[in-house]
Amino acid sequence: MYRIGIDVGGTNIAMGLVDESYRIIRKKSVKTDENSSPEKMIQSITEGISELVTEAGNIADNALDLIDAIGIGVPGTAEPDTGKILYANNLGFEDVPFLTEIKAKLDPHLAEKTFFENDANAAAIGEYITGDYDVPVFVMVTLGTGIGGGIIINGKLLRGCNYAAAEFGHMSINIDGCDCNCGRKGCFEDYASATALIQQAKEAMEQDDGRESLLWKESAAKDELDGEKFFRAVKAGDKTAEKVLAGYCNYLAEGLTNLINILQPDVIVLSGGITRAADLFLDKVKEKVARDVYSRDSRINTEITIARGITDSGDVGIIGAALVDKM
Amino acid sequence: MYRIGIDVGGTNIAMGLVDESYRIIRKKSVKTDENSSPEKMIQSITEGISELVTEAGNIADNALDLIDAIGIGVPGTAEPDTGKILYANNLGFEDVPFLTEIKAKLDPHLAEKTFFENDANAAAIGEYITGDYDVPVFVMVTLGTGIGGGIIINGKLLRGCNYAAAEFGHMSINIDGCDCNCGRKGCFEDYASATALIQQAKEAMEQDDGRESLLWKESAAKDELDGEKFFRAVKAGDKTAEKVLAGYCNYLAEGLTNLINILQPDVIVLSGGITRAADLFLDKVKEKVARDVYSRDSRINTEITIARGITDSGDVGIIGAALVDKM
Repeated sequence: MYRIGIDVGGTNIAMGLVDESYRIIRKKSVKTDENSSPEKMIQSITEGISELVTEAGNIADNALDLIDAIGIGVPGTAEPDTGKILYANNLGFEDVPFLTEIKAKLDPHLAEKTFFENDANAAAIGEYITGDYDVPVFVMVTLGTGIGGGIIINGKLLRGCNYAAAEFGHMSINIDGCDCNCGRKGCFEDYASATALIQQAKEAMEQDDGRESLLWKESAAKDELDGEKFFRAVKAGDKTAEKVLAGYCNYLAEGLTNLINILQPDVIVLSGGITRAADLFLDKVKEKVARDVYSRDSRINTEITIARGITDSGDVGIIGAALVDKM
Repeated sequence: MYRIGIDVGGTNIAMGLVDESYRIIRKKSVKTDENSSPEKMIQSITEGISELVTEAGNIADNALDLIDAIGIGVPGTAEPDTGKILYANNLGFEDVPFLTEIKAKLDPHLAEKTFFENDANAAAIGEYITGDYDVPVFVMVTLGTGIGGGIIINGKLLRGCNYAAAEFGHMSINIDGCDCNCGRKGCFEDYASATALIQQAKEAMEQDDGRESLLWKESAAKDELDGEKFFRAVKAGDKTAEKVLAGYCNYLAEGLTNLINILQPDVIVLSGGITRAADLFLDKVKEKVARDVYSRDSRINTEITIARGITDSGDVGIIGAALVDKM
């Protein structure tokens, strides 16, 4: 049996045929842009599904029956009751009957097994299932451009009253802090996302008049700095980079400590590109959390760890989406 | 049928026989002090239970069979598996086999229906049941000396991996803020507990050189100010008190907005003595939250409301405790 996972992003739609071992055996991608209308995207998605079903048919007969489920991850609020995307900032969508229209274009046998979900929730579902966690309270925190996440309690995704739960990035940790694009001040993602880390490093480069830091040597210009270059400088023992990272660890620990004091999850899984450099910062974060959490004297405490599921690959979006019907 | 609820506090142990309408029909109270040993408290509790059972016997025969459950709310971390209080700051307890020893002293028929729970969780259970909420995600936030709370998801209390979940008061909203007794900086309860409100009012009194504010007229000395006097000044239109309250509303809204962005509960119930003056501040808090939450464009949003259950009476501790076995 197969599943189809579709990851709708701001720049492209990635689609894959996923087998029972959660491996992607066929993959396709369609570019999107800011001007992509819902209609165009829906058309691309239904065409992609049809092609993947055909390819499943090349592997085995009766392809339609071989598809267990089709899941679509969207960067916004997905409302299952109505099949609508209520709001997707990156796509410029508001109140779009996205799933409904996709289902209307599909063979009824496929339509009835087609689902959608917010992409951060889909990633959490993917990690929970492929990482084989068996814990009552599971939290995933994704460190990327912003900070997203998902909460799974007793094997069930916590969607919240309006399907918008787990917006960890928009927990303020600094009431008097910098302006966030959400309209608040001092949100967690403005301090602890991957973007924020690079921003903090660029600010440190600006302070470095003599251009002595390796950050300058790694990047000819300030704007060339990226995560890889940053962590190379840390690895080489660059003091400026180390100082930036220490500050970043405090910010990350601050938000995680809040989440633990609220939820006391069995596990918090960190994901996102920068966790590939986790050996350079995870212990520092854990130490700070261990010092700060309210429950620090408990025998048991939340395990903070790095994504271990198949979703830790670049295909997190597709595999997570392919599994959304499981919760 | 009856239940016995026992509320263990820093200054006294309140015990009550509770009927099926969640009314307390017999009540007793024993003073405790900072020097109360676990043994002394356990003795007081088992004696109290025995007296309440006898009184139930005066109401009807076969008193033992008439007791549905005995619940004990404790101001600390209650670990049901081991029957231990892991930590209770106010009682000075650490790793005390509290429930185990109480059960050992009770008739086996009673012992098997005796339970304990953290007091804030017990209050949330009490409000959820007596207030007849029927929502998937329920959060109670208690504004008192500190800020405590409880999370009930699909009718089940979220205890967390170490029974210490829902410590909302120790979510930092100000990474550079004032020192909290938990060791962190800028915790929610340092800004938005009832104690914090009075503290903010006292600071405003200090600034008021001419002693023109009604806060001074209500309280002969700064230290005499309490919640009742404060809200009397607000009601009378005192500018200083109004300004303090406006600031407090912002702090309270900040923490509630964080909780909503994380959990998107169907309802957040505020409880605690100061909610008796909710008509003077609840709307302001709601307006600020509505402006700030990430999901502000959703059709559905979290309802913020004041405790409506029987637990809104002074007997919240007893009734909540009496119901803890229900989750």
